[in-house]
Amino acid sequence: MDFSHSPRALELIDSVGAFLRDRVSPAEAAARERLMASTDWSVPPEVEALKAEAKAAGLWNLFLPSVSGLSNVDYAPLAELMGRTHWGAEVMNCAAPDTGNMEVLHAFGTPEQKERWLAPLLEGSIRSAFCMTEPDVASSDATTMECTAVVDGDEVVVNGVKWWSTGVGHPDCELLVVMGVTDPSAPRHSRHSIVLVPRSTPGVTVERMLQTMGWYDAPGGHGQVRFDDVRVPLSNVVGQPGGAFAIAQGRLGPGRIHHCMRAIGLAEKALELACERAVSRTAFGKPIANLGGNRERIADARMAIQQSRLLVLHAAWLLDTEGLLGALSAISQIKVVVPNMAQSVVDLAIQLHGGAGLSQDFPLGPAWLVARALRIADGPDEVHRGVVAKIELAPYIARAAGN
Amino acid sequence: MDFSHSPRALELIDSVGAFLRDRVSPAEAAARERLMASTDWSVPPEVEALKAEAKAAGLWNLFLPSVSGLSNVDYAPLAELMGRTHWGAEVMNCAAPDTGNMEVLHAFGTPEQKERWLAPLLEGSIRSAFCMTEPDVASSDATTMECTAVVDGDEVVVNGVKWWSTGVGHPDCELLVVMGVTDPSAPRHSRHSIVLVPRSTPGVTVERMLQTMGWYDAPGGHGQVRFDDVRVPLSNVVGQPGGAFAIAQGRLGPGRIHHCMRAIGLAEKALELACERAVSRTAFGKPIANLGGNRERIADARMAIQQSRLLVLHAAWLLDTEGLLGALSAISQIKVVVPNMAQSVVDLAIQLHGGAGLSQDFPLGPAWLVARALRIADGPDEVHRGVVAKIELAPYIARAAGN
Amino acid sequence: MDFSHSPRALELIDSVGAFLRDRVSPAEAAARERLMASTDWSVPPEVEALKAEAKAAGLWNLFLPSVSGLSNVDYAPLAELMGRTHWGAEVMNCAAPDTGNMEVLHAFGTPEQKERWLAPLLEGSIRSAFCMTEPDVASSDATTMECTAVVDGDEVVVNGVKWWSTGVGHPDCELLVVMGVTDPSAPRHSRHSIVLVPRSTPGVTVERMLQTMGWYDAPGGHGQVRFDDVRVPLSNVVGQPGGAFAIAQGRLGPGRIHHCMRAIGLAEKALELACERAVSRTAFGKPIANLGGNRERIADARMAIQQSRLLVLHAAWLLDTEGLLGALSAISQIKVVVPNMAQSVVDLAIQLHGGAGLSQDFPLGPAWLVARALRIADGPDEVHRGVVAKIELAPYIARAAGN
Amino acid sequence: MDFSHSPRALELIDSVGAFLRDRVSPAEAAARERLMASTDWSVPPEVEALKAEAKAAGLWNLFLPSVSGLSNVDYAPLAELMGRTHWGAEVMNCAAPDTGNMEVLHAFGTPEQKERWLAPLLEGSIRSAFCMTEPDVASSDATTMECTAVVDGDEVVVNGVKWWSTGVGHPDCELLVVMGVTDPSAPRHSRHSIVLVPRSTPGVTVERMLQTMGWYDAPGGHGQVRFDDVRVPLSNVVGQPGGAFAIAQGRLGPGRIHHCMRAIGLAEKALELACERAVSRTAFGKPIANLGGNRERIADARMAIQQSRLLVLHAAWLLDTEGLLGALSAISQIKVVVPNMAQSVVDLAIQLHGGAGLSQDFPLGPAWLVARALRIADGPDEVHRGVVAKIELAPYIARAAGN
Repeated sequence: MDFSHSPRALELIDSVGAFLRDRVSPAEAAARERLMASTDWSVPPEVEALKAEAKAAGLWNLFLPSVSGLSNVDYAPLAELMGRTHWGAEVMNCAAPDTGNMEVLHAFGTPEQKERWLAPLLEGSIRSAFCMTEPDVASSDATTMECTAVVDGDEVVVNGVKWWSTGVGHPDCELLVVMGVTDPSAPRHSRHSIVLVPRSTPGVTVERMLQTMGWYDAPGGHGQVRFDDVRVPLSNVVGQPGGAFAIAQGRLGPGRIHHCMRAIGLAEKALELACERAVSRTAFGKPIANLGGNRERIADARMAIQQSRLLVLHAAWLLDTEGLLGALSAISQIKVVVPNMAQSVVDLAIQLHGGAGLSQDFPLGPAWLVARALRIADGPDEVHRGVVAKIELAPYIARAAGN
Repeated sequence: MDFSHSPRALELIDSVGAFLRDRVSPAEAAARERLMASTDWSVPPEVEALKAEAKAAGLWNLFLPSVSGLSNVDYAPLAELMGRTHWGAEVMNCAAPDTGNMEVLHAFGTPEQKERWLAPLLEGSIRSAFCMTEPDVASSDATTMECTAVVDGDEVVVNGVKWWSTGVGHPDCELLVVMGVTDPSAPRHSRHSIVLVPRSTPGVTVERMLQTMGWYDAPGGHGQVRFDDVRVPLSNVVGQPGGAFAIAQGRLGPGRIHHCMRAIGLAEKALELACERAVSRTAFGKPIANLGGNRERIADARMAIQQSRLLVLHAAWLLDTEGLLGALSAISQIKVVVPNMAQSVVDLAIQLHGGAGLSQDFPLGPAWLVARALRIADGPDEVHRGVVAKIELAPYIARAAGN
Repeated sequence: MDFSHSPRALELIDSVGAFLRDRVSPAEAAARERLMASTDWSVPPEVEALKAEAKAAGLWNLFLPSVSGLSNVDYAPLAELMGRTHWGAEVMNCAAPDTGNMEVLHAFGTPEQKERWLAPLLEGSIRSAFCMTEPDVASSDATTMECTAVVDGDEVVVNGVKWWSTGVGHPDCELLVVMGVTDPSAPRHSRHSIVLVPRSTPGVTVERMLQTMGWYDAPGGHGQVRFDDVRVPLSNVVGQPGGAFAIAQGRLGPGRIHHCMRAIGLAEKALELACERAVSRTAFGKPIANLGGNRERIADARMAIQQSRLLVLHAAWLLDTEGLLGALSAISQIKVVVPNMAQSVVDLAIQLHGGAGLSQDFPLGPAWLVARALRIADGPDEVHRGVVAKIELAPYIARAAGN
Repeated sequence: MDFSHSPRALELIDSVGAFLRDRVSPAEAAARERLMASTDWSVPPEVEALKAEAKAAGLWNLFLPSVSGLSNVDYAPLAELMGRTHWGAEVMNCAAPDTGNMEVLHAFGTPEQKERWLAPLLEGSIRSAFCMTEPDVASSDATTMECTAVVDGDEVVVNGVKWWSTGVGHPDCELLVVMGVTDPSAPRHSRHSIVLVPRSTPGVTVERMLQTMGWYDAPGGHGQVRFDDVRVPLSNVVGQPGGAFAIAQGRLGPGRIHHCMRAIGLAEKALELACERAVSRTAFGKPIANLGGNRERIADARMAIQQSRLLVLHAAWLLDTEGLLGALSAISQIKVVVPNMAQSVVDLAIQLHGGAGLSQDFPLGPAWLVARALRIADGPDEVHRGVVAKIELAPYIARAAGN
C-alpha cells in the first residue's frame, strides 16, 4: 500500500498548482463581481487569454487519458486543484460537460464524428452540451424518459423537452449530445440512443435559461431546450441506435471522479478561507478560532475532507485497476459523500465569515451552490445510496435465497 | 395548561389566512420571475395595491400591541402565516426592519420624534433602515463597534461605515436608525447612542448594495452606508445619549419572535410543497414518497417544525408574562433552533424536487436563503448558544463558588 | 394559550418533588451498587418502606385519572419528576407495565376481574407483566404474531412464546396480561384477544431472563415466557375475544406520555450532572465547561430537552381534549423525539464525565440504557416515523387521488 | 498510489482470517453467555487453548514490527480482523495494554528489564497493566497528575491512586507500568517517569474493579489501584526519571492504529449482522431491508466504514514513512473518526435487530460499549479534535503573526 503520487502526477501538481495560483486566481479575483450572479452571456476576455496560456504550457486536456497519459488516480489531484478556482477547469479544457462529451466521442465516435466534433472540442474552439434530464419526469429513473429519437430511414428525428442542459447558453456551444428513446419496446437497457445534434439544427429552441438559486451561471448556463421534429443524419447516432445506456454509463465513472475531486478542492479552499478568518477576526477579546466550538468544527472539516479525498482516490484507483464494474459501489459512494461534505464545509466557512460569507466579497456563496447542486446532478443522493445498498445486500440476499 | 389560541387570535388567523391565500399568493405567483433575483429597485405596483387592501381590511400594524391589542402569543400565528409568502409581512406593514424601528419609536420616542417618524411609518408612507452591523469588526460583540455618534453642542455627529443596512435601497426609505459610540470610556452598556438620521442628510452615502448568495433582495436590499461627519440635532437621539443598549435589547425580543414565526411559516410552506411533490412525482414505479427514506424525512420535518413552533409560542408567552428578562434564554433558544430547522426542512424540500427545487419554478431557493441568512442576522447561532449556556450554567457556577 | 400548570398540578409538583428529593434519592444513592447490574431478584427492603411512605402521603396511583383526578397534562410533570430517579415511579405505584395493565382493567375489566386483579394492583400488593412481543417475528407488525389464544368451550387455551415480558421476574408478579391470536381469519384488527393468565397457571414457564446490554434489570427484569396449553376460564378474556386491538391502543396513548415524560426527567437529571461536572472539573487551567464546544453542547441539550418537553405536554393536552384519534400523530412524534433526545443528552453527560461517566459512580450508564431501549420498546422509531408520515401525507394523497 | 496490500500482508490476512473464523469464532459462540457481563475472574480454558494454537501456527506477536517484520500498514488489516471477535487479539498475544507495554519495553527497556518482563510478556506467560489515568483529575491534561514517583537514593517511591488500569484484574497480571510525577518543577514535558512496579509489591492495593455500563470486562477488567509508599529499585524506571512523556507518546501512535482498526472490524461485523437481519426478518410483508430508510442507513454505514478504514490505513502509512511527528494530526483524526463511526454503525445494527439487538443473543451490546468507551479512552474526542485544529491552524497563526 503506497499513498504517494506518481512522479508524473507530482510534477503536474506543481505546474498546474502554480498556473492556477499565479495566473487564474488573480484574474478571477479581479473579475469577482462579474463572476457572481452575472447575466452577461458573453465569454470573459480573461478566459480566452488564460486558455491560450494553458494550451501553450501543455496544461490542456489533462482529463483524457489517451491524450495526457494520466490514470484516473493521477488526474484526481489535478482536478482537486482546479476545483479551488472558478475558471480553472474551463481554461485548461477540463470542464464538464465537454469532458464527458469528449470521452464519449473518443471512445465510441466514428472517424467522421471525431473529426467533425471531437477535434474542435479538444482544440477548445467549440463547446457542447449534454441533454438528458427532462422537466416532466424523474430523470433518475431513465425508463421515464419522454424525449424520442426515432430512426426514420437514414435520419433520426428528435422530439421532446430537456432541461438542465449545461453549457447550452455559451456563445461557442455548437453541439448538443442528446439522449432519446428509440425503441420503447426494447429491453430496459436497449431503448435509448445518443444523438449528435448541431445547435443550429432547425427545430432546436432554447426556451429559457434556468436559474439555480437565482443564478444563471452565465455564460454557459443551464437551458431548457425544446426539440421539435429535429432531423439529423443517422450517422449522427453515437454507437448503435439503442446503445445509449452503455455509453452513458462509461461517461459517468470518470466524470463523477472529476466532479468529486473538484468539490474537494472547493471544500479545501473554503476551509482555507475559514481558517484565515478564524485567526484574523476578533470578538470578545479573542480570535474567533478560540470561541466556542469553532476549533472543533475546523477539525471536523479537516477530517471530513481528508476522509472523502481518500475515498475518491481509492475509487479512482479501483476504476483504473478493475474497471467500471469493480468501481460501481465506490463511485456511488463518492457521489453521496463528497457533495454533502463540501456543502457542510462551505456552510461552516460562511458561518465563520458572518454576513460577509454570504456577500460578493467572498466566493463562498457560489461554492455552496456548486456543492448543493451536485447532490442532485448526476443522480441524487438517494439514488446513489440505493446503488450502494443494493451492492452491499446482494450477497446476503443470494445466501438467504439459497436457504 | 391550555394550547388553544384566544378567540381574537383565531379570528385573525382566519382573516389574515384568507387575505394571504386569496390576494397575496396569486399576485406573487404571477410576479415570481420578478421576485427572484431582481435588480429592479422600484416598488412593484402589486405591493402598493395590496397594502391599500390590507389597510382597508384592518390587517395593518398587527405586530404592535398598543395598536392591535395583540399579545406576542396572539400575534405569533399571524406572523407564521405571513412567513408563508414573500410579500405578506410587507403589505400588512409588519415587515422588518420597520417593525423594530416603530417599536423603538413607540416605546422611547419623544412626541416630536413620534409625529415626525412614527406616524408616517405606521401609515406605511415611508420606510426605514436600521444601521448597526459594521464590515470591519465582529458585530456580535458590540464593544468592537467603530462608528461614532459624538455629541457636539446641540448636535450629534455620526462617522463610520455600516453594512447589512436592510431596506436602505427602498425608494421610500427616509429614515436611518443608526447606532454609534458616544462615550467609549463609559461602562460597557452605556457607551452607545441611537440616532435618527434622515436618509437625505449630507454625508450619508450608500456605497453599494450587498448581494446575499448573489441576490440583491430588491427593492429594499441591504446596503453599505458611509457616514461622513453627518450632523443631526441632538433631539434626534432616541432616549438619552449612551442609552442605546437598553433600547436595542427591547427591540430584539419581539423581533426575534416575529422572525422565527415567519421562518416557521416558510418551513411549513416548504414541507407542503415537498408533500405535494412526493405524492405526485413518480420514479421506479412509485410516488417518490414511497422511495427510500423519504417518508421518514417528511416525518422528521414535521416533528422538527412542531417542536420549534411550540418553543417559539412558549417564548412569546414568557415574554408576555415575565418580560424580556424572564424570556432571555428562551429567545436565544428560538433564534438557534428555528433558522436551523427551517434551513434543513427547505433543503429536504429542494432535494425532493430535484433540479426544479433550485430553479425559478419554485420559491425554495429564496426560502433557503432567508433561513440561512437568519442563522447570522440578529446574532449568529454561536452567540445565542453562548447566551443559553451562560444562563444554564449560572446557578451551578454560583453554587460551586459558594463552596 | 397558557403554559402555566393548574394549581393542583403545581401543588403535586411540590409534594412529589420533595418526596423524591428527600426520601427516594438518598435511599437510592445508598443502594447504588446494588441498583446497577444486580442479579439479586429479591425486592430491596428500601423499596417496600418507600412504598408505604408514598401511600401514606397520598402520593399513590397518581397516573390513573379516575383515582387521582389528574388529566394527562397535569400528570406529565409528575412523571417527569419520577423519571429523575430509579425507584420513584415504582414506589408511588406508577411504574410500567402495571400502570398500563391497571388502565386496561379499569377501562375494560368486568367487576370480577377488577376485584380479583385491579384491586391488589392498585393496592401495590401484587405486580403484573404484559406479554405481547415475540422472539421469532417482527412484533411491530402485529399480524405476524404467532402466539394463539383459542376459545375452547368456556376456556381459553394459550400457546406460544413471548419475550421482553417486563416485570415477570418480580417475586410479587402474579398476573400475566397476554395477547394472542384467537381468529386468524377475522379482519386484521379483530384477530387478537387479551387474556389474564395467573403467573402460577400450569404450562407457564419463564424460560430465561433477558439481558439488556448485559443487565438483568432485577428484580422485575424482562423474561422469555413459554405458554404450553395454558388453560384459563373464558371469563379471563378482557373485553371480547378478538377485541385486543382497541384495548391495546387505548393502553398506549397515556403509556407513551408517561414513558416520554420520565425520559425527559432522566435527560434533565443527566444535564444537571453534566453541568455540575462542567463547572467543577478542571483541565488545561479552566473548568471544562469553558473548553472547546462544551458550552454549545450544553446549550443544545437544553434546547432539545425544552422542545421535546413542550411536544409531550402538547400531546398530553391533545389526548385530554381530542382523545386518542386526535393525538395519534402527536403520540408517535413524542415516541420518536424523546428517546432519541434523551439518548443524546445522556451521551453528552457521559462524555463530560470521562471514564467516570461509564462507571458505577454515576447513574448515567443505566440512564443511557433506558433511553436506548425506549427507541425500540413500544414500537421502534421507524414505525412511529411511518405513522407520522402517513398522517402527514394523507390529505395530499386524497387530493392527488381526487384529480 | 497503490491501494493493494503487500504479498506478506495478503498471506497473513488469509491465515489470520481462517484462524479467527474457524477456531476463535466457534469457541466464542459457545461461550457467549459467559463472555457477556461475566463476573468470573478466572481465565476461560478456551482462551488458553487458543493461545497455544495461535502460537504454534506462528500467529503470535504480529503487532510488534521487530518480531513480525510487519509495518503498521501491513498489520492494520490483521488488527481489523481481530476486532471482529472478542478473543481474537488476546489469543494472538496482540491485546492492549500488553501490546503497548511490550512496545515500551522493547524500545526503551534495559537488557535486564527486557529479560525480566518483556520476555514473559512476549511469551504470553504473564500479563500487565498500564496505570496512568487518575480518578480525581482530568487525565487528558497530564499536568494535573497527582500520583508521585519520587527518586529516593537508589529507589523510586510511588504514591497515588490510579483507575481504569485495564487488565489489573487478570490472574496472570504481574506487572504494572505506572506513570508518576518525579519533579513537578521541571519543564512540562520532563516531570513524569514511567516505573515498572511488580503487582505483588507491598503497598499496591487494587481497591475495586470498575464497571463500564454495568460490566466488569472480566477476567482482565479495569481496576482502581492505590499505591502507598510503594518502593521499587531505581533500575525499574524505564528510560530516565522525568523521561515518561516521550516514551508514552511513542506508545500511543501504533496503539491508536491498533485500537481503531479493531473498531473497524467490530463495525464491519455489526454491519454484517445488520445485513443478515435486514434480509431475513420480515414485517409488513417485506424484508425489513426494504422498509423506510433502512437501505439508506446500510449504505451510510458502508460509506462511513470505508472512509474511516482508508483514513486509518493512510495514518498507518504516514507513521511508517514519516514517523510519529508526521502522523500526529492523522492519528488524532482516526481517534475521533473511528470510534464515533463504530458507535453509530453498531447503534444501527442494534436498531435493525429490535429488542434482540440489546440482548445476550447477539454481540452488539458489548460492541457498542467498546466503541463508546474508546471515545473516552486514550484521550477523549474533544482533546483529539483540539490537536487536529491546532495543527490545522498553526500555519495561519504563524502567517497572521508575521503581518
